Amino acid sequence: MLKVLKFGGTSVGTLERIQNVANIIKDKKNDGHDVIAVVSAMSGETNKLIEYADHFSSNPASAEIDMLLSSGERVTSALLSIALNDQGYKTTSMSGREAGITTSDAHTKARIENIDVSNMKNAIADGKIIIVAGFQGVTNNGRVSTLGRGGSDLTAVAIAGAIKADLCEIYTDVDGIYTTDPRIEPKAKKLDKISYDEMLELASLGAKVLQTRSVEMAKKLNVNLVSRSSFSPQTPGTLITKEENIMEKPLVSGIALDRNQVRVGLYSVIDKPGIAASIFTGLADANVNVDMIIQTVGVDGVTDLDFTVPKTELDITKEVMARFENDAKNIDYNEEISKVSIVGVGMKSHAGIASKAFQAMADENINIRIISTSEIKISMIILEKYSELAVRALHEAYNLDK
Amino acid sequence: MLKVLKFGGTSVGTLERIQNVANIIKDKKNDGHDVIAVVSAMSGETNKLIEYADHFSSNPASAEIDMLLSSGERVTSALLSIALNDQGYKTTSMSGREAGITTSDAHTKARIENIDVSNMKNAIADGKIIIVAGFQGVTNNGRVSTLGRGGSDLTAVAIAGAIKADLCEIYTDVDGIYTTDPRIEPKAKKLDKISYDEMLELASLGAKVLQTRSVEMAKKLNVNLVSRSSFSPQTPGTLITKEENIMEKPLVSGIALDRNQVRVGLYSVIDKPGIAASIFTGLADANVNVDMIIQTVGVDGVTDLDFTVPKTELDITKEVMARFENDAKNIDYNEEISKVSIVGVGMKSHAGIASKAFQAMADENINIRIISTSEIKISMIILEKYSELAVRALHEAYNLDK
Repeated sequence: MLKVLKFGGTSVGTLERIQNVANIIKDKKNDGHDVIAVVSAMSGETNKLIEYADHFSSNPASAEIDMLLSSGERVTSALLSIALNDQGYKTTSMSGREAGITTSDAHTKARIENIDVSNMKNAIADGKIIIVAGFQGVTNNGRVSTLGRGGSDLTAVAIAGAIKADLCEIYTDVDGIYTTDPRIEPKAKKLDKISYDEMLELASLGAKVLQTRSVEMAKKLNVNLVSRSSFSPQTPGTLITKEENIMEKPLVSGIALDRNQVRVGLYSVIDKPGIAASIFTGLADANVNVDMIIQTVGVDGVTDLDFTVPKTELDITKEVMARFENDAKNIDYNEEISKVSIVGVGMKSHAGIASKAFQAMADENINIRIISTSEIKISMIILEKYSELAVRALHEAYNLDK
Repeated sequence: MLKVLKFGGTSVGTLERIQNVANIIKDKKNDGHDVIAVVSAMSGETNKLIEYADHFSSNPASAEIDMLLSSGERVTSALLSIALNDQGYKTTSMSGREAGITTSDAHTKARIENIDVSNMKNAIADGKIIIVAGFQGVTNNGRVSTLGRGGSDLTAVAIAGAIKADLCEIYTDVDGIYTTDPRIEPKAKKLDKISYDEMLELASLGAKVLQTRSVEMAKKLNVNLVSRSSFSPQTPGTLITKEENIMEKPLVSGIALDRNQVRVGLYSVIDKPGIAASIFTGLADANVNVDMIIQTVGVDGVTDLDFTVPKTELDITKEVMARFENDAKNIDYNEEISKVSIVGVGMKSHAGIASKAFQAMADENINIRIISTSEIKISMIILEKYSELAVRALHEAYNLDK
């Protein structure tokens, strides 16, 4: 098998951990696999370099930031290559450029445009383990570029897709995707498999483990992703794959909790045509991600409108909403809410999933403020103080601890 | 004027010092010059990375060492570019590759083979200050390479030669070349100008300031070099140039002291033909740099042979000499010696220079063990304990403090 392995900053944060990663790679090679490893900078390095840049400028040129930050991954790739080489393995480090990765010229947030895999294919044919400096590529102008947050994951997934690897394993300090956050529900169970779509809906569970961008790319390129831990490499992780590859489709795969939402309420909105459209167009133009929307039509030509936005976008939301002050009796913002979601591909073909959730909430006297459903997800806005209780109640209601 | 400025690790050792270097560059630009700056890694960075590599291997692959070490200069070049950019100057960092530098594939000690200056010329035409990551290039295979000790100086000189710069200023923490080591003779004076050949002969005076390799390259490419200090940028440094550019040729430019020699003595060598040739061929084959040789022909078919080798090559010298044990009565090694040299292009056309040196030594009762002379240098081997006294006596004899 050809495996692409990705090791994040924590996994390569010290020389001892780099040695540990070398051992993981060695085991794969000894098992007969070809290996391309993609590495991040040692944890702390990137932040140190950003602090250096901040010392000189509050607004440094993004091309220079890329020159600066791309050095961290190069260091890790060389060290890991040296470590493996010393144990008798043929290895080569590769910068993003050497790995054939060309990107857009949007420095610090470049998109991968193409991967010329010929250099990597030759090295594999030579029996070499390849260690790619993640997070970076080269623009058409020949300048080094970086891919932004989660860039090393993207590098790994994109390489796996381009070179048609059998598997792309993303190593972090967590050993997979759980049915819910184990800090909230200690009975949470690690999932063996999950579909791309479920993973995307469970983003809040996997946020520290897998970036949404990477899962989307894996889905698009049909890359089999595995989330696993470099600290317990014996533990099998969670396979994220296409739905067809999952034989037994569970009704519910997991319960996600998102505390980063604010509920915006507009009361007694004058029910003139197009008012909702204007509001949401205004928010979209300001790049606000409106999540859940509920509209309650009143009896006397007025209506109530509720929706949620990320807490991080509250200020810009308030700016936009100021334009509609005269269209509603009052507008309020409630940050004391959270969103719990039930996710599962099995929902598509089963009725009655939602009613079980509502019953579980009712049993705990938790009031549901907004509900929204998609094919594979039911989300509910509740008061934040009930968050943990709601997660545990839902986890039990769907027997996720079994 | 087009100036190439080179700043070593100490000059960019902290963020404050990088800011100081930015100010030096700014002043040049404001004076109407075009500027290409070549920078080293921040002092300490390269050693830290070497320690990291040593952790994993006692014999790391040299291509990986290059990948590892080349990151340090990239960081400095990006930071300096950001600092200047923030003050309103158009800048661009360039890796060795972006600066068009191709090298041999002798990783960790690559030779510069070619510099394609088109990228740099375009940036200059755009009014940009260029900050080149020193010490590195790229092999014909597309892998990053480094140039070994003094590599950033070489980068600067080679770029200056290739792009036909008017001047190449090498900034260190010393403000130029002195008539002798000021720690030995406080009356030592800074030289305004010195020829390439004198500089090469005075290597021991300039060793910490200018690498011999760089001076040789400057001579070959006819680059006007200036040695000056980034800590006192107002102080003019020493210009190292071709002899024709120096109007007033001093009889003696400086006094050099070299404590790194060992005197090897072979006594009562059987005077058979070719014995000296065998010895020196043996030493040359073992890469021993024999410096001074004296042969004293005796009366009864035996001869004494004295020569000096660097202390660092004493062990290998002893190995070679073991083969000739039966050819001499005895062989001894004296490490308690040093070499003082008087250097000056004016010697070529003036007689009587040497006799003044011998007189000065005699006046101080310093016994001269070996003498060798070249067109522009007189070297004497004396007992090490007289080193400082000899330097001061010669400095005064030739009026170098005037």
